Amino acid sequence: MLQVLLLVDLDNDTSVPVFQVCEWHSPEQLKKLLDLELRDGGEAESEILQRCRDAIRYSVKTRIILHIKSHTYVISIRYTYEVAPVFTLMEDAVLRKMIKVIGWEEGGDGIFNPGGSLSNMYAVNLARYRYCPDFKEVGMFSAPRLVILTSQECHYSISKGAALMGIGTKNVYTVPTDERGRMIPSALEEKIMLAKSEGAVPFMVNATAGTTVLGAFDPIDEIADICEKHNLWLHVDACWGGAAIMSKKHKHLLKGIHRVDSVAWNPHKMLMASLQCSAFLVRDKTSLLQHCHSARASYLFQQDKFYDVSYDTGDKSVQCSRKPDAFKFWLMWKALGSRELEQRVDRALAMARYLAEEIKKREGFRLVLEPEYANVCFWYLPPSMRNLPESPELWKKLHTVAPVVKQRMMKKGSMMVGYQPLGEKANFFRMVVISPQVSRQDLDFVLNEIHNLGKDL
Amino acid sequence: MLQVLLLVDLDNDTSVPVFQVCEWHSPEQLKKLLDLELRDGGEAESEILQRCRDAIRYSVKTRIILHIKSHTYVISIRYTYEVAPVFTLMEDAVLRKMIKVIGWEEGGDGIFNPGGSLSNMYAVNLARYRYCPDFKEVGMFSAPRLVILTSQECHYSISKGAALMGIGTKNVYTVPTDERGRMIPSALEEKIMLAKSEGAVPFMVNATAGTTVLGAFDPIDEIADICEKHNLWLHVDACWGGAAIMSKKHKHLLKGIHRVDSVAWNPHKMLMASLQCSAFLVRDKTSLLQHCHSARASYLFQQDKFYDVSYDTGDKSVQCSRKPDAFKFWLMWKALGSRELEQRVDRALAMARYLAEEIKKREGFRLVLEPEYANVCFWYLPPSMRNLPESPELWKKLHTVAPVVKQRMMKKGSMMVGYQPLGEKANFFRMVVISPQVSRQDLDFVLNEIHNLGKDL
Repeated sequence: MLQVLLLVDLDNDTSVPVFQVCEWHSPEQLKKLLDLELRDGGEAESEILQRCRDAIRYSVKTRIILHIKSHTYVISIRYTYEVAPVFTLMEDAVLRKMIKVIGWEEGGDGIFNPGGSLSNMYAVNLARYRYCPDFKEVGMFSAPRLVILTSQECHYSISKGAALMGIGTKNVYTVPTDERGRMIPSALEEKIMLAKSEGAVPFMVNATAGTTVLGAFDPIDEIADICEKHNLWLHVDACWGGAAIMSKKHKHLLKGIHRVDSVAWNPHKMLMASLQCSAFLVRDKTSLLQHCHSARASYLFQQDKFYDVSYDTGDKSVQCSRKPDAFKFWLMWKALGSRELEQRVDRALAMARYLAEEIKKREGFRLVLEPEYANVCFWYLPPSMRNLPESPELWKKLHTVAPVVKQRMMKKGSMMVGYQPLGEKANFFRMVVISPQVSRQDLDFVLNEIHNLGKDL
Repeated sequence: MLQVLLLVDLDNDTSVPVFQVCEWHSPEQLKKLLDLELRDGGEAESEILQRCRDAIRYSVKTRIILHIKSHTYVISIRYTYEVAPVFTLMEDAVLRKMIKVIGWEEGGDGIFNPGGSLSNMYAVNLARYRYCPDFKEVGMFSAPRLVILTSQECHYSISKGAALMGIGTKNVYTVPTDERGRMIPSALEEKIMLAKSEGAVPFMVNATAGTTVLGAFDPIDEIADICEKHNLWLHVDACWGGAAIMSKKHKHLLKGIHRVDSVAWNPHKMLMASLQCSAFLVRDKTSLLQHCHSARASYLFQQDKFYDVSYDTGDKSVQCSRKPDAFKFWLMWKALGSRELEQRVDRALAMARYLAEEIKKREGFRLVLEPEYANVCFWYLPPSMRNLPESPELWKKLHTVAPVVKQRMMKKGSMMVGYQPLGEKANFFRMVVISPQVSRQDLDFVLNEIHNLGKDL
């Protein structure tokens, strides 16, 4: 959306000095020119358009030398300040703002990644590096068996990461959750003790803020106590739930997040930056991210440059070129201001609340649990099943309803609402409400349509 | 560029049935409707526009239920056919075509990744998985020391990958290169024997097709002989050099690539798909990619769906949602045809050849080596240095020239040409020519400008 603005604007904009590849400014000068600060209030469209012009003006333009077509200006972050001065500073500004919102008063570090899965993997890698930096060089062949602790409801990227990173899926110890899908702190401590008793080395805990299916928030504060006691890295996968921190009303869900070591937070979810926009944030101030991931390629990170090379942030990443995902979020924040971002969250959760209340009112609908976030999980019972006694047979029958209703809605094309089983629970629908433009009528439509599609089952 | 087309088109296009979330077709039906085949000839703009309309028509549209703004249709691949029917099939089609071009006659598998670094890491992970699938579950704590072999000129992602994946940078054994930057096969075999003599387990060789600095191509055929003999996975990092395979004239650079196990190839480089567009291709036909990376999340990969779930390709990735990068390349290939892609490569290499000849003609310029690809590496000697005898002092002086010229060109904004040292070699410029729109005049300008900026040094 913003990219379109930018690109369309470009072709007719004579204010951009097209005969210069770049208009050089030092990082400190450019920071002043760009007014990077993100504020409570938003800005008018004309101001945002000017910010797009500025982004173009001070970016490196490849038109002259390489004659790439006029609107394919290089818009990647790549790896050094000199090739991406604007986006490097914007990434820095938006990361700092997110760090402030999280409440890390002494600052921190971070980077945007192509997806929350990779952010979670970065957390595992940093936690491992802090535990023993030597693994980076010598590998894990003679290491003690390392163990990651996470709830049984966590995102599958923890398990994928453990496999990729040579830790192994069996060394991801899953901690039981309570009836709402939240990690049970006492169970966490038991699992830590179990790992230790086996001679293994627990080195990190992954807490989830907003689980994928139920939208549950692990109790960060209590988990942080345990991590401090056992000296474990505490990562919070807040990819989905991180948005709640923008809301005074809902930030209690993330209570204690200022105490954790790292956070994955995807503004492309509830805050609705366009996909992909995933931040990885780390409380460390000792360049752990850089030390853990750097390869110091001499063809990129020359030390004989004429500017402060600490702005060459590329070596913090395991990638080489990256997309300038931070720009989307920076510009959006500029346009909307923190206040409107807060309202987005509040509106989305109010809508989820409305949907949950409707479900409770309507015959044939049953909540899986009271939502505390935007995930509304529910069963639909066709009339033929409504008077059956609670029994394994009922649940077995009910298990087949959601797949058929889903198939019918897709073939009709009327809507798409996902379903899944969970543990012992039969297939249920999961409706996730995020857009500020969803109306109550839309949600009524969803419930009516499910009934219409499934009433004969 | 293509995205703009698509988005702008959308808002005024009444042919798109906006009141349907999706128009359901089975994978086999949809394949016929989309005409996915990539041919030698290109298509007219009107046809390409129709293909964009079709892509929208058959994609899942989130407008109705979630009321995301009209032009932010979900355009991610995500993980399942049902949410990304069009892009799933297009990714499949373009991967098959690339596999065919590579010459894997029995087919293969693949996926698009956010960057070539990740593709190279996928190769390491698959090679490791083939060597011992158990590592996925148990980690590498009791594994023998694994060793990756690669040339000293390889991309730094091999080393970053080794660190991330628990193998360790010290277990990346670098093989010496010849004077042109190509891996020396006999030296490779020596390093393999060295690793074995140490009790370590060499399990993969990374050959580079188009090194970052010199544009060198490792001799794949000879390396494949060695890998077969020692039963090692052979990966080719052809992120940069893969484009040469499109050209009858230049494909010899990749001779033997049909024999390798996996290839990383970035169409966003010489073929100029917009960043990011990076394919990872694997010759295996036993679903190794799926087995190696799968986590089988029950909320996504339900087995009780009503279509062939082998089209749910998301579990081949270590990511969750992904961008539909394949679409950019598919559409570009449709528009240009294989023939025009071939001409792009031929033109780019002809331009590099022109630049090299100019450098040889001009006083004060000296080639680092004759280019065999698009990388033209050269020194500029200011007049004050031209009559100095070849000596360490000359090279020490010369080492300081490129950084100063670079600084001056950036402050002036006239162009950006990178420089770097390499081994014992003093800082030299590296000009990489890719755009079909670069003219000989542009290249003359580059050399003139370097002289103008550096003649007083």
